[in-house]
Amino acid sequence: MDLFSAIETRTSCRQFLPDAVDRETIDRILAAGVRAPSPLNSQPWQFIVIRAPAIRQAIYAEAQRCIAWAIEQSGWKWLSKYKTDFLLQAPVLVVVVGDPKKTGMDMFQEEGTVGYQLACAAAIQNMLLAAHALDLGSLFFTLFDKNQLRRILDIPKEKTPVALVCIGKPKDPQNPAPRKDSKEKTVYLD
Amino acid sequence: MDLFSAIETRTSCRQFLPDAVDRETIDRILAAGVRAPSPLNSQPWQFIVIRAPAIRQAIYAEAQRCIAWAIEQSGWKWLSKYKTDFLLQAPVLVVVVGDPKKTGMDMFQEEGTVGYQLACAAAIQNMLLAAHALDLGSLFFTLFDKNQLRRILDIPKEKTPVALVCIGKPKDPQNPAPRKDSKEKTVYLD
Repeated sequence: MDLFSAIETRTSCRQFLPDAVDRETIDRILAAGVRAPSPLNSQPWQFIVIRAPAIRQAIYAEAQRCIAWAIEQSGWKWLSKYKTDFLLQAPVLVVVVGDPKKTGMDMFQEEGTVGYQLACAAAIQNMLLAAHALDLGSLFFTLFDKNQLRRILDIPKEKTPVALVCIGKPKDPQNPAPRKDSKEKTVYLD
Repeated sequence: MDLFSAIETRTSCRQFLPDAVDRETIDRILAAGVRAPSPLNSQPWQFIVIRAPAIRQAIYAEAQRCIAWAIEQSGWKWLSKYKTDFLLQAPVLVVVVGDPKKTGMDMFQEEGTVGYQLACAAAIQNMLLAAHALDLGSLFFTLFDKNQLRRILDIPKEKTPVALVCIGKPKDPQNPAPRKDSKEKTVYLD
């Protein structure tokens, strides 16, 4: 698939078919992930590929708990309509775990260490595009409490679960969500 | 360019030719950026495209100040060899500014609001790939103090300059930097 087509036609998928995704395909998606840039080429990512039903169920329960809690905090009642069944449906979940020690020079900066998380997000974008080029749908998902995900997946407290990527065959044809034109978001200083 | 080729052959460029990059090309790169996913499709990015020499000089001076300060904090003397001349050489600098209010539900989470920055990083990865497919080099750069960049570019304190992307014709042929195999970074929970 052409790069620009991939970027323009990729969209977030929230309904998946149960069809299995083979390990070679998953590895190809992860190999695309690690080609992202990172501070001092520190490659601060690790991947936990989850297909075990009991673990998926625990992650689903955590997302439900988070939604209930967010409704309480925010008063956003529409949130109760936000279903996270894709956590059970998608045949593959990949948790991307970042290492805050691999964050480059921002470890010395006042506004905190975020470089390693930016690198993980860049890796995830590569993964989403790669999945799309392989005719798979994907979702960049962050609705979990980091400590709860550490507990479920036995991630040491020194590492940060940055996001979870759902991957699988889309149930329906995918239509890209609308975006504001980039020109409305841009100023030129010439 | 094929998506997988783009992902595999893109690399960070630190030496640029002075050749101008036209506005249509810049707009095409930014249009790729806005196709990234974001929390609740909030599109938390804005772009400041800088070609003015005086502003580039101020950003260069800030990077130099940051390096001197990081050496003092870290004792990493090798840092003194890290040149940031690309901030003066690259014909285009794009500062990607994020809006912390557009961060989705993580605004209620204990570990703070980072969702909008992850979305900006995903947008930047699209931009790096788009630049590469258009035969341009690029660099994802974050060595600045956010408050100093706010001051130089008149960015309100409610917004966050997430990163700066240098774009231009590469001076030399680009060889991708090595990566650890993704399999070394992956565990499967089946």
